[in-house]
Amino acid sequence: MNEAALRELLNAVGSARITTDEALTRLRDWPYENLGYARIDHHRTLRKGAPEVVFCEGKTPEQAVEIFVRLVERNGRAMATRVGQAHADAIRKRLSAACYHPEARVIIVGEPMVLSEDSCPFVLIATGGTADIPVAEEAALTVEFNSIRAERLYDVGAAGVHRLLDQRMLLAEAAVVVAVAGMDGALPGLIAGLVACPVIAVPTSIGYGTGLGGVAALMNMLNACAPGIAVVNIDNGFGAGYLASIIARQKVQIAT
Amino acid sequence: MNEAALRELLNAVGSARITTDEALTRLRDWPYENLGYARIDHHRTLRKGAPEVVFCEGKTPEQAVEIFVRLVERNGRAMATRVGQAHADAIRKRLSAACYHPEARVIIVGEPMVLSEDSCPFVLIATGGTADIPVAEEAALTVEFNSIRAERLYDVGAAGVHRLLDQRMLLAEAAVVVAVAGMDGALPGLIAGLVACPVIAVPTSIGYGTGLGGVAALMNMLNACAPGIAVVNIDNGFGAGYLASIIARQKVQIAT
Amino acid sequence: MNEAALRELLNAVGSARITTDEALTRLRDWPYENLGYARIDHHRTLRKGAPEVVFCEGKTPEQAVEIFVRLVERNGRAMATRVGQAHADAIRKRLSAACYHPEARVIIVGEPMVLSEDSCPFVLIATGGTADIPVAEEAALTVEFNSIRAERLYDVGAAGVHRLLDQRMLLAEAAVVVAVAGMDGALPGLIAGLVACPVIAVPTSIGYGTGLGGVAALMNMLNACAPGIAVVNIDNGFGAGYLASIIARQKVQIAT
Amino acid sequence: MNEAALRELLNAVGSARITTDEALTRLRDWPYENLGYARIDHHRTLRKGAPEVVFCEGKTPEQAVEIFVRLVERNGRAMATRVGQAHADAIRKRLSAACYHPEARVIIVGEPMVLSEDSCPFVLIATGGTADIPVAEEAALTVEFNSIRAERLYDVGAAGVHRLLDQRMLLAEAAVVVAVAGMDGALPGLIAGLVACPVIAVPTSIGYGTGLGGVAALMNMLNACAPGIAVVNIDNGFGAGYLASIIARQKVQIAT
Amino acid sequence: MNEAALRELLNAVGSARITTDEALTRLRDWPYENLGYARIDHHRTLRKGAPEVVFCEGKTPEQAVEIFVRLVERNGRAMATRVGQAHADAIRKRLSAACYHPEARVIIVGEPMVLSEDSCPFVLIATGGTADIPVAEEAALTVEFNSIRAERLYDVGAAGVHRLLDQRMLLAEAAVVVAVAGMDGALPGLIAGLVACPVIAVPTSIGYGTGLGGVAALMNMLNACAPGIAVVNIDNGFGAGYLASIIARQKVQIAT
Amino acid sequence: MNEAALRELLNAVGSARITTDEALTRLRDWPYENLGYARIDHHRTLRKGAPEVVFCEGKTPEQAVEIFVRLVERNGRAMATRVGQAHADAIRKRLSAACYHPEARVIIVGEPMVLSEDSCPFVLIATGGTADIPVAEEAALTVEFNSIRAERLYDVGAAGVHRLLDQRMLLAEAAVVVAVAGMDGALPGLIAGLVACPVIAVPTSIGYGTGLGGVAALMNMLNACAPGIAVVNIDNGFGAGYLASIIARQKVQIAT
Amino acid sequence: MNEAALRELLNAVGSARITTDEALTRLRDWPYENLGYARIDHHRTLRKGAPEVVFCEGKTPEQAVEIFVRLVERNGRAMATRVGQAHADAIRKRLSAACYHPEARVIIVGEPMVLSEDSCPFVLIATGGTADIPVAEEAALTVEFNSIRAERLYDVGAAGVHRLLDQRMLLAEAAVVVAVAGMDGALPGLIAGLVACPVIAVPTSIGYGTGLGGVAALMNMLNACAPGIAVVNIDNGFGAGYLASIIARQKVQIAT
Amino acid sequence: MNEAALRELLNAVGSARITTDEALTRLRDWPYENLGYARIDHHRTLRKGAPEVVFCEGKTPEQAVEIFVRLVERNGRAMATRVGQAHADAIRKRLSAACYHPEARVIIVGEPMVLSEDSCPFVLIATGGTADIPVAEEAALTVEFNSIRAERLYDVGAAGVHRLLDQRMLLAEAAVVVAVAGMDGALPGLIAGLVACPVIAVPTSIGYGTGLGGVAALMNMLNACAPGIAVVNIDNGFGAGYLASIIARQKVQIAT
Repeated sequence: MNEAALRELLNAVGSARITTDEALTRLRDWPYENLGYARIDHHRTLRKGAPEVVFCEGKTPEQAVEIFVRLVERNGRAMATRVGQAHADAIRKRLSAACYHPEARVIIVGEPMVLSEDSCPFVLIATGGTADIPVAEEAALTVEFNSIRAERLYDVGAAGVHRLLDQRMLLAEAAVVVAVAGMDGALPGLIAGLVACPVIAVPTSIGYGTGLGGVAALMNMLNACAPGIAVVNIDNGFGAGYLASIIARQKVQIAT
Repeated sequence: MNEAALRELLNAVGSARITTDEALTRLRDWPYENLGYARIDHHRTLRKGAPEVVFCEGKTPEQAVEIFVRLVERNGRAMATRVGQAHADAIRKRLSAACYHPEARVIIVGEPMVLSEDSCPFVLIATGGTADIPVAEEAALTVEFNSIRAERLYDVGAAGVHRLLDQRMLLAEAAVVVAVAGMDGALPGLIAGLVACPVIAVPTSIGYGTGLGGVAALMNMLNACAPGIAVVNIDNGFGAGYLASIIARQKVQIAT
Repeated sequence: MNEAALRELLNAVGSARITTDEALTRLRDWPYENLGYARIDHHRTLRKGAPEVVFCEGKTPEQAVEIFVRLVERNGRAMATRVGQAHADAIRKRLSAACYHPEARVIIVGEPMVLSEDSCPFVLIATGGTADIPVAEEAALTVEFNSIRAERLYDVGAAGVHRLLDQRMLLAEAAVVVAVAGMDGALPGLIAGLVACPVIAVPTSIGYGTGLGGVAALMNMLNACAPGIAVVNIDNGFGAGYLASIIARQKVQIAT
Repeated sequence: MNEAALRELLNAVGSARITTDEALTRLRDWPYENLGYARIDHHRTLRKGAPEVVFCEGKTPEQAVEIFVRLVERNGRAMATRVGQAHADAIRKRLSAACYHPEARVIIVGEPMVLSEDSCPFVLIATGGTADIPVAEEAALTVEFNSIRAERLYDVGAAGVHRLLDQRMLLAEAAVVVAVAGMDGALPGLIAGLVACPVIAVPTSIGYGTGLGGVAALMNMLNACAPGIAVVNIDNGFGAGYLASIIARQKVQIAT
Repeated sequence: MNEAALRELLNAVGSARITTDEALTRLRDWPYENLGYARIDHHRTLRKGAPEVVFCEGKTPEQAVEIFVRLVERNGRAMATRVGQAHADAIRKRLSAACYHPEARVIIVGEPMVLSEDSCPFVLIATGGTADIPVAEEAALTVEFNSIRAERLYDVGAAGVHRLLDQRMLLAEAAVVVAVAGMDGALPGLIAGLVACPVIAVPTSIGYGTGLGGVAALMNMLNACAPGIAVVNIDNGFGAGYLASIIARQKVQIAT
Repeated sequence: MNEAALRELLNAVGSARITTDEALTRLRDWPYENLGYARIDHHRTLRKGAPEVVFCEGKTPEQAVEIFVRLVERNGRAMATRVGQAHADAIRKRLSAACYHPEARVIIVGEPMVLSEDSCPFVLIATGGTADIPVAEEAALTVEFNSIRAERLYDVGAAGVHRLLDQRMLLAEAAVVVAVAGMDGALPGLIAGLVACPVIAVPTSIGYGTGLGGVAALMNMLNACAPGIAVVNIDNGFGAGYLASIIARQKVQIAT
Repeated sequence: MNEAALRELLNAVGSARITTDEALTRLRDWPYENLGYARIDHHRTLRKGAPEVVFCEGKTPEQAVEIFVRLVERNGRAMATRVGQAHADAIRKRLSAACYHPEARVIIVGEPMVLSEDSCPFVLIATGGTADIPVAEEAALTVEFNSIRAERLYDVGAAGVHRLLDQRMLLAEAAVVVAVAGMDGALPGLIAGLVACPVIAVPTSIGYGTGLGGVAALMNMLNACAPGIAVVNIDNGFGAGYLASIIARQKVQIAT
Repeated sequence: MNEAALRELLNAVGSARITTDEALTRLRDWPYENLGYARIDHHRTLRKGAPEVVFCEGKTPEQAVEIFVRLVERNGRAMATRVGQAHADAIRKRLSAACYHPEARVIIVGEPMVLSEDSCPFVLIATGGTADIPVAEEAALTVEFNSIRAERLYDVGAAGVHRLLDQRMLLAEAAVVVAVAGMDGALPGLIAGLVACPVIAVPTSIGYGTGLGGVAALMNMLNACAPGIAVVNIDNGFGAGYLASIIARQKVQIAT
């Protein structure tokens, strides 16, 4: 139930089209819905401007399906992350319209309402290497699910800085940059030295020896010298995409 | 030399008011100025929309003064962070107009061009406790130095959540929230659960035992469940303030 | 052999119903029983008020069965934790009455003597998310095995604080709260800010990137600002349930 | 303002002895009091059964004094921890009745309302060595401030286990044991193997080489094999004493 | 080739029973034997008093077999550790007399020359729990391979200290104690508080949450308060057994 | 396209043998080639003196093949590291001439142009044990791919220092030594104490308990007392081989 | 009270030279003496064969003096470690015969009963560098306090291995070697490769960068490839000396 | 005594200009000189091509002076690192010619034999920031002490990448680059992406929050994507300078 639906409901009560009891019934589950093992936060769309996204890791396929279906019922669309094959199969069995992106381990129901005009502000998703792409795709799909255009710029890492410098124009136009990198994690710092917009850094768990599952990249990004960067957790493409989209949306809303 | 000054200079060349040689002389030091031990990045104002800020830790007072003075000469104003008493004394001896904030260890020359109307977008700086205030002040002064209004909301930490819930209105109006917290670092996650705007989290090195100089708070913030958060380095008030201000500025620029 | 049985035995000797030799034979294995690879602590029921619970991880199924059966023989009931499927199968083959809880990886023989009246003090088991439920169930089953009522309140984590605040009444009535959370581990601190009773925090190994298998949640909980919290080891539902039950029992014993 | 005072106030309104406006004036600052840099949580006495205790580390002496005085004004008594000499001097200048315990770095105003009869439940504070005493004293003073009797049993660490076994009687009678130890931190586990009551473990930062400022002791305590233990943060005597006292109080309240 | 064989060879040269050339041929491979991928240290028996023991982890079965066979050819007996099933099968195919201990992952050819009299000094191998037995067996077999009697005392961990105290006589008679423990690793410190002989501590990787694969136990043992302890690496039963046997041998050699 | 080819192309333009447009077409992909998911750095041969080497971990077999083939097309030869069996099969299906080294997980197309004369400077690859050989082979193959002779000296670790001292002559002749060791990682420090040439240390992830996947060896090598050492990342045989070859090449180039 | 004194006392009772009451009075404080803040373990001489040694860090000078004096009164001699100047001054004021070794921070009363003949077994204390000497001296003084001869061999670290090899004779004769080293900590492994006797390794907190206060050396020693090593805590010269002396004493006792 | 002096001595014996006894006397201290607390490695000049450099940290001023003077006596020149003011004063009192560089904490006696021609190969020392200069100077002075030309390029860090790109010519000419950086440590990776020569990376302990005293920079450098880098320990300017000079010397020696 999004804001518009809520306003409509209240108007219906106000104009006596429905009774208070009817309204109460429909509102009863509104703040959250208790499935016993989970309390779905239907209130979030109103409070945060975006519906709850299901994090599947650690949930049984049955739990994931149940929560996902309830979200679709309320909001008409839903997204889940960290979706393994078993979860995806279970969800698609119930909702054949669900679209599974195995590389990003994301499943989506409902059209991403991407703002189509090229003139709109966009989020640029950049990766240091090819192996960072799954995390980047999680970010990009999240951006698009939040109705913001996402541009992809992959494999422009620090070992060959000319590959990045060639794209200065694209960098300069981005409303936000999400920079995804493993290994030494130098990419976000480099980009932040080149652009004026916010840079959201995502360390990935890709890399040799002391990368320690992304901790080296994380520490590098936290210590980047150029200002204008903040960091999300290792491999947390969703978090970066979500934050980037709410920053970019400010430009969109006011521009229209 | 900011963008306006550069355009003026180029126009002067174009209209033959000054010779190419004169322009070259004035542009010679433009990209950066080499002091031997430091290369001042005068180009940054243009590239990043904000002048370089001097990080004093690890620099001798003499080096700090020299760099700071050059920045003032070029830009008419300047800011330095991590300014110890010795650095502050040395700078104020040369620039008596410099204003030192000992708690935040920040020194500033030139009026912060804060947008005064109350209707303008603002950055909300919140702290978990009283001991987090120095870092919060570094952030707030940085925001103001970047010409954005900063509101302070101190000591609203998680141990008494009603202190925070009371301020829901203020939280809802902020363009960005900078949440500064040591100890368990739960504040940013709580706030992100309440607001729709971006939250920049700053872990501080305050706390008991296993806080490990802020690492516990940092890890907590990176793992916060609510989306819409990104994290800067421990005690890095400047970084958070800088990022918050460039996000908030998007609203400002388009609004005007 | 529990305290009552021991008293009975000693009385039997005192009233010459059995000989000293007979008593000695029955007492011979009393302090502990040596199986070669294990020394079962039969003395614990007397000393600690609860029988030894078998920790199966690292034991072969044969060893686990043997120890478990001995405990049942002595005490009429027994509980084991970290019970994999192979262990469970082996135990149930010998003791068909054994009840296996696969999610919690717990096996129990003998009726949990839960105090049935609703007026009795109870332990509240709360989780931050759905994925924390297995650890919470280990705690809840342990509480019930120790004859204390357990109430479950799942998926009330910090990302939607209103889900928790709605349950303030339930929180206020608990004798002890066991708060189970992974990710940022903010739940116990939040609860401790709301209740006057002791809070036992259990970090879980669920979460993204730098969660480091629960260390982030652990550190967070240790650094929680609200007083009245102590922490057990990562995923140690049994330890939390055990401690909670001996705290709650104080109220019970005196109340009766 | 404690619960009794609040009830009295409400009764006064109910019986029209004071006007609603007068009541409102007196209640205005009740939930918390905003000093700008701090929001004192006067509501806590009601919510948690104990007044807020001031944590002085990271606060200026001026801030500490101001907060402390406000608490004394409201509650008639107050306690502060992590009180350095400068803080203590400043507080005692304003409140000559304040009693400073330099070893424990604790300052208290108002009589600890210790329940004097020997028959009352008590908290036993045990230390592994002499060097752990400052942390133990912070715990003991906190217990007494919360009106529970505290017994001290110092230097009974694991290197000479007979020193501990000699005190089995005292251990058996305690309602709760607070076990404070640095070095290898084995004390809490040993005690938990001997008693049936809850054990709160406090690691201290005392020790050789890899003690890593208490982390070794902390990890040891978290991994203790005997059930019935939970752990607070390194050197957090206050946290342990607070939790111990609220557990012990359950026995007291019902016993009376 | 052991010391006796070398002396015999040299005497043969001295008495002209063999030519220098023949001696050289037999001595050619003496210091070590180069297999290309490995240089077997035949010199070690002489230098260290014990033959090289093969560490199989990281070697292919073929390499392990080849090295093991060469050692048997030279010394008449050999031992290998960290022997997986594949390695064991390969070795036993070549040397059917090889005896595989799967729990300890040890393989041995040749009779352990254990000193049989009960009056001989012995090494006591103690474990905290049942799950520590594989590491303890690696130690015990190593002790016996080095011709010292090994006594086993398993599952006497700190959670039920009376199980340990019952064995004080056995502890008092040991020449060396190898104390193997995971979890909190308190066992070695306890034992060192009771005995006058050296204690070799072996942390194991068994345990809950923050055990961090044995690091908690390791740190605990390094910080044990009782003197007379030293520690070997996590799960390094071989290292502990080896060191214990060379300490015990001193008593043996002089006693005879 | 190597330097010679580029010069030839430019000469062709200069002498009008090809048009500028033709040259541009051929140069279009020169700096890098965009495959969407990867940007191949063809410029590197010129800039770094060696072609890009494909790091396969984290890439799909399809991506790895595509990149590898493009490199072969440009340079006539190519090398890939961290090549799993699936990657190798895919590559060999397209390029039957590709030679796969499964132990080192390296695949190579094109003859390593090893300088054959024995008098040429060579890189010595030494390992502490047999289990370090896969990493050493990655280094050796990289050296040879860069046209430098590699000598192998395996299993000369610190536990039997005479095995190393025997090879002093070989050590003295090396232009660079690559020292590969796990466990305690003492080998590079020992070698650096014996030779005058640079030593590149490679920690490996082989070892007992606290080796922590190579971190112990890495820290040991960074703290080696003998000067003349630098360290690459854990298991990074490629990095060590690459660096060693560009150091050795200096001698070669000038010598010829 | 040592073993001889106890036997004398019991004989006196047996032969009625003193009454039981008199004996009881003298035995009353025997197991330990309670000073309130400390329980001195007078029983240790009997149980462990060596009197308790006072660890001064974390004790006030007054506490240290009191404990030290009691030990001297009982045993005629005493030793304390980690003795700062203030502690030393306080002790020497009471006991002018106390001898302070400032470098090792050790204070001793009573003649070390070093076995003077050169033929006796001895402990060899070796250091890697000059900066490790304070820790080595703590070990050496402890060995001598336990009546074993100590030989010193300083600055023979791994960077110049010939300095160590020159001393092979001395190494071969030692009953035990205590190897003290910071930096890379390679010394103990090297020595263990050369000798047949036990090697006790002591990491020190000396060193560059990632030495992390001795953790690098500690990890190195735990991972040393040569068998026959065990490790004590960082900078724990006392622990190493104590263990070495009880190993060496076995040889002495039987030899005489 | 360098190689030339040794050859001269041997020639003198060969031609009977001095007797064998005289030669022996002069050679007696040759391999190393035993000062009791230190064994000076005079052999190193021959073995390693450079005299031992005194590491002063952890040595008393008296020890430092004595060792330093002996080195000067033998070699005519000497260098010491980590020289505090007290050490410097003590050395200069004995050797007034000693030149102290307080920023780099280096002291040198004897002319650095820098190869003066501009055409000679040189080592380029680059720093990320001004605060890294002390470590860089330690490196540069070491390079010059080893008779190689050092060029300095300071404050060209990653936050303003154009400052570095401007110096591409200088970078291209260097025989070796020593890249010194704290914070995010991205500089060496960037440089390695631009040059063909070896890059020695030195992490420094400068930086915000999670820099953890240089560990973040260290990990970053170890994980740098561009090949051709190796890393020395944190703040180890000497180690980097030493290694760089022996690499550069290869070019020099052959060139002449």
